Amino acid sequence: MKLPPNTKFVLIGDSITDAGRDPSGEATPWGAPGHGRGYVGLIEAWIGATRPADHIRLINRGTGGHTVRDLKNRWQTDVLDLKPDWVSIMIGVNDVWRQYDTPLRPEGHVLIDEYTRTLEELVTRTRPHVKGLVLATPFLIEGHRGDAMRKTMDAYSDVVRTLAKKHDAVFVDIQGAFDEVLVHTHPMTLAWDRIHPNTTGHMIIARAFLKALGAL
Amino acid sequence: MKLPPNTKFVLIGDSITDAGRDPSGEATPWGAPGHGRGYVGLIEAWIGATRPADHIRLINRGTGGHTVRDLKNRWQTDVLDLKPDWVSIMIGVNDVWRQYDTPLRPEGHVLIDEYTRTLEELVTRTRPHVKGLVLATPFLIEGHRGDAMRKTMDAYSDVVRTLAKKHDAVFVDIQGAFDEVLVHTHPMTLAWDRIHPNTTGHMIIARAFLKALGAL
Amino acid sequence: MKLPPNTKFVLIGDSITDAGRDPSGEATPWGAPGHGRGYVGLIEAWIGATRPADHIRLINRGTGGHTVRDLKNRWQTDVLDLKPDWVSIMIGVNDVWRQYDTPLRPEGHVLIDEYTRTLEELVTRTRPHVKGLVLATPFLIEGHRGDAMRKTMDAYSDVVRTLAKKHDAVFVDIQGAFDEVLVHTHPMTLAWDRIHPNTTGHMIIARAFLKALGAL
Amino acid sequence: MKLPPNTKFVLIGDSITDAGRDPSGEATPWGAPGHGRGYVGLIEAWIGATRPADHIRLINRGTGGHTVRDLKNRWQTDVLDLKPDWVSIMIGVNDVWRQYDTPLRPEGHVLIDEYTRTLEELVTRTRPHVKGLVLATPFLIEGHRGDAMRKTMDAYSDVVRTLAKKHDAVFVDIQGAFDEVLVHTHPMTLAWDRIHPNTTGHMIIARAFLKALGAL
Amino acid sequence: MKLPPNTKFVLIGDSITDAGRDPSGEATPWGAPGHGRGYVGLIEAWIGATRPADHIRLINRGTGGHTVRDLKNRWQTDVLDLKPDWVSIMIGVNDVWRQYDTPLRPEGHVLIDEYTRTLEELVTRTRPHVKGLVLATPFLIEGHRGDAMRKTMDAYSDVVRTLAKKHDAVFVDIQGAFDEVLVHTHPMTLAWDRIHPNTTGHMIIARAFLKALGAL
Amino acid sequence: MKLPPNTKFVLIGDSITDAGRDPSGEATPWGAPGHGRGYVGLIEAWIGATRPADHIRLINRGTGGHTVRDLKNRWQTDVLDLKPDWVSIMIGVNDVWRQYDTPLRPEGHVLIDEYTRTLEELVTRTRPHVKGLVLATPFLIEGHRGDAMRKTMDAYSDVVRTLAKKHDAVFVDIQGAFDEVLVHTHPMTLAWDRIHPNTTGHMIIARAFLKALGAL
Amino acid sequence: MKLPPNTKFVLIGDSITDAGRDPSGEATPWGAPGHGRGYVGLIEAWIGATRPADHIRLINRGTGGHTVRDLKNRWQTDVLDLKPDWVSIMIGVNDVWRQYDTPLRPEGHVLIDEYTRTLEELVTRTRPHVKGLVLATPFLIEGHRGDAMRKTMDAYSDVVRTLAKKHDAVFVDIQGAFDEVLVHTHPMTLAWDRIHPNTTGHMIIARAFLKALGAL
Amino acid sequence: MKLPPNTKFVLIGDSITDAGRDPSGEATPWGAPGHGRGYVGLIEAWIGATRPADHIRLINRGTGGHTVRDLKNRWQTDVLDLKPDWVSIMIGVNDVWRQYDTPLRPEGHVLIDEYTRTLEELVTRTRPHVKGLVLATPFLIEGHRGDAMRKTMDAYSDVVRTLAKKHDAVFVDIQGAFDEVLVHTHPMTLAWDRIHPNTTGHMIIARAFLKALGAL
Repeated sequence: MKLPPNTKFVLIGDSITDAGRDPSGEATPWGAPGHGRGYVGLIEAWIGATRPADHIRLINRGTGGHTVRDLKNRWQTDVLDLKPDWVSIMIGVNDVWRQYDTPLRPEGHVLIDEYTRTLEELVTRTRPHVKGLVLATPFLIEGHRGDAMRKTMDAYSDVVRTLAKKHDAVFVDIQGAFDEVLVHTHPMTLAWDRIHPNTTGHMIIARAFLKALGAL
Repeated sequence: MKLPPNTKFVLIGDSITDAGRDPSGEATPWGAPGHGRGYVGLIEAWIGATRPADHIRLINRGTGGHTVRDLKNRWQTDVLDLKPDWVSIMIGVNDVWRQYDTPLRPEGHVLIDEYTRTLEELVTRTRPHVKGLVLATPFLIEGHRGDAMRKTMDAYSDVVRTLAKKHDAVFVDIQGAFDEVLVHTHPMTLAWDRIHPNTTGHMIIARAFLKALGAL
Repeated sequence: MKLPPNTKFVLIGDSITDAGRDPSGEATPWGAPGHGRGYVGLIEAWIGATRPADHIRLINRGTGGHTVRDLKNRWQTDVLDLKPDWVSIMIGVNDVWRQYDTPLRPEGHVLIDEYTRTLEELVTRTRPHVKGLVLATPFLIEGHRGDAMRKTMDAYSDVVRTLAKKHDAVFVDIQGAFDEVLVHTHPMTLAWDRIHPNTTGHMIIARAFLKALGAL
Repeated sequence: MKLPPNTKFVLIGDSITDAGRDPSGEATPWGAPGHGRGYVGLIEAWIGATRPADHIRLINRGTGGHTVRDLKNRWQTDVLDLKPDWVSIMIGVNDVWRQYDTPLRPEGHVLIDEYTRTLEELVTRTRPHVKGLVLATPFLIEGHRGDAMRKTMDAYSDVVRTLAKKHDAVFVDIQGAFDEVLVHTHPMTLAWDRIHPNTTGHMIIARAFLKALGAL
Repeated sequence: MKLPPNTKFVLIGDSITDAGRDPSGEATPWGAPGHGRGYVGLIEAWIGATRPADHIRLINRGTGGHTVRDLKNRWQTDVLDLKPDWVSIMIGVNDVWRQYDTPLRPEGHVLIDEYTRTLEELVTRTRPHVKGLVLATPFLIEGHRGDAMRKTMDAYSDVVRTLAKKHDAVFVDIQGAFDEVLVHTHPMTLAWDRIHPNTTGHMIIARAFLKALGAL
Repeated sequence: MKLPPNTKFVLIGDSITDAGRDPSGEATPWGAPGHGRGYVGLIEAWIGATRPADHIRLINRGTGGHTVRDLKNRWQTDVLDLKPDWVSIMIGVNDVWRQYDTPLRPEGHVLIDEYTRTLEELVTRTRPHVKGLVLATPFLIEGHRGDAMRKTMDAYSDVVRTLAKKHDAVFVDIQGAFDEVLVHTHPMTLAWDRIHPNTTGHMIIARAFLKALGAL
Repeated sequence: MKLPPNTKFVLIGDSITDAGRDPSGEATPWGAPGHGRGYVGLIEAWIGATRPADHIRLINRGTGGHTVRDLKNRWQTDVLDLKPDWVSIMIGVNDVWRQYDTPLRPEGHVLIDEYTRTLEELVTRTRPHVKGLVLATPFLIEGHRGDAMRKTMDAYSDVVRTLAKKHDAVFVDIQGAFDEVLVHTHPMTLAWDRIHPNTTGHMIIARAFLKALGAL
Repeated sequence: MKLPPNTKFVLIGDSITDAGRDPSGEATPWGAPGHGRGYVGLIEAWIGATRPADHIRLINRGTGGHTVRDLKNRWQTDVLDLKPDWVSIMIGVNDVWRQYDTPLRPEGHVLIDEYTRTLEELVTRTRPHVKGLVLATPFLIEGHRGDAMRKTMDAYSDVVRTLAKKHDAVFVDIQGAFDEVLVHTHPMTLAWDRIHPNTTGHMIIARAFLKALGAL
């Protein structure tokens, strides 16, 4: 298990990470809403159930609709000021999606150059201050790889893969994890909009994280 | 894995099983509420993520506040009419709790004789029609075993253990699973009322089920 | 224009037809909710604006989530009892969708044999009593024709085309109308779930109807 | 079609233009509320359905209850700052209405001199910066031309007609479009308050715009 | 004053009479909603303030949207069973309005023959059992007498006038009372939809009643 | 009638005056809430119905719970800035009530010296700027004059009477108007709390005003 | 203490008894609403705090707005079917109040003859089946004994006193308990409507009960 | 009785003290919410019922979730500025609870050193300005004294006992009062979360206060 005892672990991202968290973004004794109903809550529950003596503290800093441009705006307060031991970043879904759902509003599109430059800037600002970094790919729950939006999303995933290697981060291939299941399962079963998965989809994400962290 | 492909698996119980399920009590593509936010949803998500080709169908028939007496009233429509391949029963929390939270209302108490007799009757009516049966203990998230309510709950757990052995059911020791974690974790961290756990608590339950079914 | 003055025109279907109609399903002086926010309201508005002297009366009988099996259950009260001059049927989206979003619940799937048989039964019961009949295809706002769900949907569209020819109905090829636009527009722009279109999508449907009826 | 490809087209006005738009005032993939339920949404849908390759972007800047005095207050931020290619103005209903529904509150009345002066000021500030301008008349859905409020409204329409000619704007005669329909249809059928039309009324407005722009 | 002490006075009608009454339709000590916010409440308040020793009891039986056809359906329970001393009927607005706001739905239109026949039937059934009867005209807050709907409404008013004379009822000319005010006041000041008046409009109605009853 | 045509008349007070007014505190064409459901709305309706050509404009500036101390705080903005022709003040109910409903909170009590001094200060600041002033008594709907709270209230009424005489104001004796009715009617019929009257009680107040103004 | 251990004690009445109870009308571990916020909850809390070993069970059967006529209608199900050991009846407030707040609706008035006859009938039906009976007076929080409603209420209290003596019931003089406090406290401090007391008023009632039962 | 007539008594604390109070935190004539539904309201009601001539004024300054650290932040405005005669402090539940329900968030834990130091600082700032001071223990409704959280809570209670003695304060042993009842009653009967008691639990607290103050 890569996270040692007493680790403070901040996970930042968009609505997939947010998943209905409360403002604290932390575990509470009265149910899951602290961490939301998504993969962060599942990771927290798994570690709490299997390693109760390790005192791993998760903090969810996902916010619905955010792109990497939005993360940059809140990086100081939402990441660095928390003085985390480990940080996870999963971003890019909205950077791509806005190009396809509102193609006539270019001011909302984060093209791949800005995405690469901004994500690397955040990684560079953070890496020296943390013991570990996790970079997870964005994804589209779409099996047809020739789909225009899937192709764009794959290009953004490649950026994440490259940056993870370059900056010594744990790489989590969420798109790859979904692709394995999509062999057997139609996208409509996992998410009506091909973006926001049900609990099975979040378990796929959580398992990809736990495997990459050696905690499964 | 004890559940073969194409199994229809009905899980019945009280609010721990219910956990906010929608009336269908089944997985949906738009999030978890079909199976609720508890252990049934977690089991469903785990199996959906790890065995997508197996087509295991879960049906949640938990109802908040129910005792074994209430299960009996809806056994025909909520279990037998569904023609399940496997059935899981986790009941008893309210049978005991009402003796301690409203001690002056004896009409709401299901004492251990009625509990044993009724649970065995349900098992006997069901066993011949199903390929597999799971019996899980009720529990109290209370580490002090001398507590009066914990002692009563343990006696009900013993009934479940005995019936599981007698009727060839898979036995799931939820109380035991919690006791392992309570060595490190105070009950207040898992549940303010010592009954309704947060997601970590539901993961403890789900893992106990998955282990007993050989699916972890 | 195929609808003569003083025609009573009933349009039945699923949520695409319903589109938030009020129970009356008819035009009101205080806004669109009578006919809903979809293609029925657009057709009504177009005719009301271009042929105010013709007194064409539309009645919306769409109901969200319905399959052809559900239409059959309400055919007498919702169609025949209204003694319409013309009837339009657009059904099949949910018949197909349930096979892909909840694949483990076969009781909700209307397979192509049942679909064909039931739709033809409804057409046969109705044709002798009406002056005109419109049959419109179901559709998926998905440009990739190799997608499993799109292939199934196309097969259902073929059934509609065949029945229209056989029973002297006006045929409206909604899927074809969308395909023309999908050359330029990604599905995400028209509908996040590839099913429920925005107003542009409903205008595509309405125009296909108006063209087929000679009213554009 | 007067709007060339890649045009950014801002439409400003009162509640008739607003029609329940969301704050963005732009098309969204999840239905019509971006552009509201009125004529702007209908124009957007018509162009999206018939010219998907043209990428015409509409921006709705209607606000309920506004007079030309209110438009002036937000002209810089709501029109000029958006750097539109084309602008449409439809204003005057409330300027007149307040004189008749709250006659004892003169501070809310915009009399015809102020109306003329302010509208011309806005036109003059805008004309040099845009490729095209649309001026549409206010209207009252009232067939009786001797009605005091109708007479006032007609005088305001004349102002719009004059300014359109003088400043090389496309003129849209909404009142005239309604008058054609009112020959056959009583005002009560289109709008209980003779101001806010149902979808048929908005289609009448949208068609008048599309005709004037050569897009029908 | 025509109503002697200890009179029980039932007033029946449509939404003008109803005006938000509570189900009791009677005065309460905690505000006006018993009698609603309309003319019935004003009459009750005037009599309560000026003749507190007379113990005149009003009962409001107005129901929004009703026509004379609806009154007939509830005449036994809502009028005769109450054993009133006096009865007031003001009906006809919706009988006429439906012909103009939803002209394509003839099943909702109560034409003048049915109106006359039904109203006279109600009067005939009631007259022998009561000490006094009030018949009030329906009305349209529209000064232009050439308006089609106004002309229809005037014809219905004539029916009421004729029946009042024939059956010895107190006649209240509501339309006439509004016409006097409309010389100075535009309809928009009194009612946005020309039907449901503000408190000034209800005071006009109440004063017409009080004058006719000799209570002003 | 003391109010000449084109008078602007501001009425200020507490919840009796407020009576649910909207923030504008002025008549609207869509019902009574502009002036609230109390005596101000009734006066407005009476004048609108009987003198439509006079254009008397009422402005309601009542605020629930206010004492004369609160009026002073908003006197500039709520009265003087409006440049009224006539002003009416009815205040004192809460000044007295707080002494009886929360006797242990002296900071909320406005004793008779402060009441007299403050009310006279407001009168003095206002009298030179207006054509007419109305001073109305506070009141308690309590027939038993020996009741401690009634005695206090009567003393405050005497202050109002004295100031009216001294400053040439129209005096309206609300308490006296209620006393006449209380001979026949128990307080419980008019107001459960003996303060906030039903519509009959507000009509008693409105008639006292109208009489004093020569408008009944 | 007159109630022996293990007593089941049903308290029936109107809104004073009800006080917002939940349908069970019994103590719950999650706050007071089982017994409501009134005197029943206070009695329950006092006994629970001072005699926890006695297991006295209270059941609240108060219902807002009820008169003795209403109690009769539910006597079998709400009292006798519960097989209580002791019963308390406090009724009469509404029997009297309706005569004063809605004097024109005689069908809601329960006059003293019907009150006496009905209350005695209930006492007679119940006395043989219970070990103890409590009869409490209705009351008005009004110090002026010449008030018409107070005089009527006192007559009803006398009925209760007489019946208590005749049928061997514990008599609780609630009116008397309030009268002692009213020497120092104005009615407005205890209840705005002189009927529904605040917690101090309910403590006055509870103490009167506890004294009469020897439990203070 | 230690509180002399005309005492102003401020009670500060956490949610146990707050108990749903309204912002004023003072008695109102329309029920209990001024003082909340907890022990403060019960003390107020008891004193109001037994000593109506004493005019003891209570002010509730409890706030849910607060620790002694939070009290310090609002001490000037919420205590000293009110110039009380007597002050009561009951604090510590959340100081301890946060260590057990969210053990991974140390920033929310108030350890015993900070608790002792801060509480003594508040006592020292206050003692010279008041006639009397009450210090009440925090508590856990848990009979098992070996429970880790109970042991911590007992240590905090010891701090309160020591400070009370040292600073001449009335000491109220709430934990001791609960322990007496817990001999007969299981914690689940009094509070599902072992912290927030039902009315019986609040009566136990109120009686402990009243006894210590000589007012029972």
